[in-house]
Amino acid sequence: MRVLVAGGDGFCGWPTALYLSVRGHEVFIADNMSRRGWDEELGTNSLTRISTLEDRVARWKELTGREIGVAAGDLTDERYVYETIDRWRPEALVHFAEQRAAPYSMIDRSHAVFTQVNNVVGTLNVIFAIGEVVPDCHLIKLGTMGEYGTPNIDIEEGYIEIEHNGRKDTLPYPKQPGSFYHLSKVHDSHNIMFGCKVWGIRATDLNQGVVYNVETEETASDPVLTNRYDYDGIFGTALNRFIAQAASGSEITVYGEGGQTRGFIDIRDTVRCIELAANNPAERGEFRVFNQFTEQWSVLQLARLVEKVARALDLDPKLVHLDNPRVEQEAHYYKAANTRLMDLGLKPHLLDEETVERLLLTAMENRDHIHPETFAPRVDWRRPHYNK
Amino acid sequence: MRVLVAGGDGFCGWPTALYLSVRGHEVFIADNMSRRGWDEELGTNSLTRISTLEDRVARWKELTGREIGVAAGDLTDERYVYETIDRWRPEALVHFAEQRAAPYSMIDRSHAVFTQVNNVVGTLNVIFAIGEVVPDCHLIKLGTMGEYGTPNIDIEEGYIEIEHNGRKDTLPYPKQPGSFYHLSKVHDSHNIMFGCKVWGIRATDLNQGVVYNVETEETASDPVLTNRYDYDGIFGTALNRFIAQAASGSEITVYGEGGQTRGFIDIRDTVRCIELAANNPAERGEFRVFNQFTEQWSVLQLARLVEKVARALDLDPKLVHLDNPRVEQEAHYYKAANTRLMDLGLKPHLLDEETVERLLLTAMENRDHIHPETFAPRVDWRRPHYNK
Repeated sequence: MRVLVAGGDGFCGWPTALYLSVRGHEVFIADNMSRRGWDEELGTNSLTRISTLEDRVARWKELTGREIGVAAGDLTDERYVYETIDRWRPEALVHFAEQRAAPYSMIDRSHAVFTQVNNVVGTLNVIFAIGEVVPDCHLIKLGTMGEYGTPNIDIEEGYIEIEHNGRKDTLPYPKQPGSFYHLSKVHDSHNIMFGCKVWGIRATDLNQGVVYNVETEETASDPVLTNRYDYDGIFGTALNRFIAQAASGSEITVYGEGGQTRGFIDIRDTVRCIELAANNPAERGEFRVFNQFTEQWSVLQLARLVEKVARALDLDPKLVHLDNPRVEQEAHYYKAANTRLMDLGLKPHLLDEETVERLLLTAMENRDHIHPETFAPRVDWRRPHYNK
Repeated sequence: MRVLVAGGDGFCGWPTALYLSVRGHEVFIADNMSRRGWDEELGTNSLTRISTLEDRVARWKELTGREIGVAAGDLTDERYVYETIDRWRPEALVHFAEQRAAPYSMIDRSHAVFTQVNNVVGTLNVIFAIGEVVPDCHLIKLGTMGEYGTPNIDIEEGYIEIEHNGRKDTLPYPKQPGSFYHLSKVHDSHNIMFGCKVWGIRATDLNQGVVYNVETEETASDPVLTNRYDYDGIFGTALNRFIAQAASGSEITVYGEGGQTRGFIDIRDTVRCIELAANNPAERGEFRVFNQFTEQWSVLQLARLVEKVARALDLDPKLVHLDNPRVEQEAHYYKAANTRLMDLGLKPHLLDEETVERLLLTAMENRDHIHPETFAPRVDWRRPHYNK
């Protein structure tokens, strides 16, 4: 299958590109390298040393003989989108190419506007180009479990049957996103659903949980293929950040009580989910939603797990609770469905001490790349700022 | 009360500004005059002759002695938004300043992207500026009944209580918008709801039905104050367009079967609803939704009403069904709640033959301004275009 991976230089996109390539798919990457630019802007860095995309694909070809096509460009540039899609005529387009950090979107007005324009316009360009140039192409779009928020009822996969005043309908599941970034994903979901309805395009919206772990079999096979590892307070996600904190002798910082419960997924399952979606495409006109996570954890449970494994490695981490910089419930009901990807064959890697230990060892090896001053939350949800 | 009317040069904004001014509120208008520019772009025009905003407010001052402040500018320009809000420090901000035509948003990719960026970024700038500069200001935002689509259950006002698997929650009412314009309003609603939650701003989202009729007591009081009357296939709404068709001896064109049922409202009630919302502000942190329409009609019912009144005026209109350019159900359940504005005191002007007759007479007087070639639907929902 010809697959275009938009955002194929990123944390999820790069492992996905390799995973699909080694399984015989013809893979192309579209990326504007903006993730690397945001590190420059914020003074953050990957805990692992990452090569340029050019070196990555060259090394991949040396090792496997497989070509990965690359076209650098920005999805908000409509000519680039149309030309790239017209040139490669993908059968599936995997769309990771968005600004993906909630705290980044909450820095100030300009970062909020940038995040929404970047994500929404990029996705609009993609659906117009698919509809006009390759209408049979399957759009596989990365959404987030954070679109749902924390309702007091079970979370379903995209839709819910509602009985109301004696009548019934199956409607889009109500969304309560918790940042301008999460909002941008909700906007995307509505736009894509509409594109499916009016133009008959086919789309799968993958509402992904928080991704942890770093390497897949492919990215671990050579140092030049190494994946990025974000650990800072803006791009670092809960488990990976806790591990970097423990490895560097810093405090493990839990926001508020830590009862915030979310869906989590190992990056080795992320790449598998993408292939399952690609191999089982949505119908023409169908907007299909899969919740892409494998298990639920509270933030405090994760912190305690890291603390425990770290102690066994003779580290001495201290677990502390910070004032929560986010506006979110710290104790709440949470039960989300995630059977659709399992039904397609996903066999989850569940989080265990061994995975945490391996991550801790990686982080300890790369300890000199950790800048502990970037752990602290720098973004306050409660105050709007013009520019910061 | 100091009220800033954003979009105060437009079809709803101008009558609202005068209505509030004559009732003793201190009114300011922010507008970029883009609605006038879109007429130039599309070759469309107002059936009535409209004066410049400068002349309008000058005449208003001559007639009433009341000042209306004007600052021309664009809400997507964040400096303009912050400066205008800081200068006038409104207690209520009525936000009409959006691209408001579904067909305009469906012309092609660039109009879709323009509509979403214009509306979403303008509204983001407004909520940031309110949150930072005048946090107590009440945002009164115009949404649309079209955000809900046509679900098979009763439509409530913004929220719905859902019982699911033995648990209950009150959640945002699911949205199924039918154009990139309607989608932009859904995006706005989610963004504003979030602004209320994290910053404690107060907002009322008015999901307005299709507005018909043209003049209010104030706009009718002098020719220079005359309101715009859109009748073309892009900006003209159902009833007003049917009347211009009948007055000019053209066919009354119903899209498809005409069973599409919507909420409708007389513009004389629109202005009253805005004042009711302003006089009864939302609480700090509250995101309140009112459905702003007074009665439900199907498109075919409206067309038949116009046909009947036209015949009594010795016109001889022919009612025809066109292939529907839109993707929408042409026969469906529709029952929407609209009690919250009534509870605040709204006494609706219900649509009757007298109103239709008066509109028909206005249209017949201005018959030489009608360009029948602009009636035809020029925009096809079913095909995406790069540029048209």
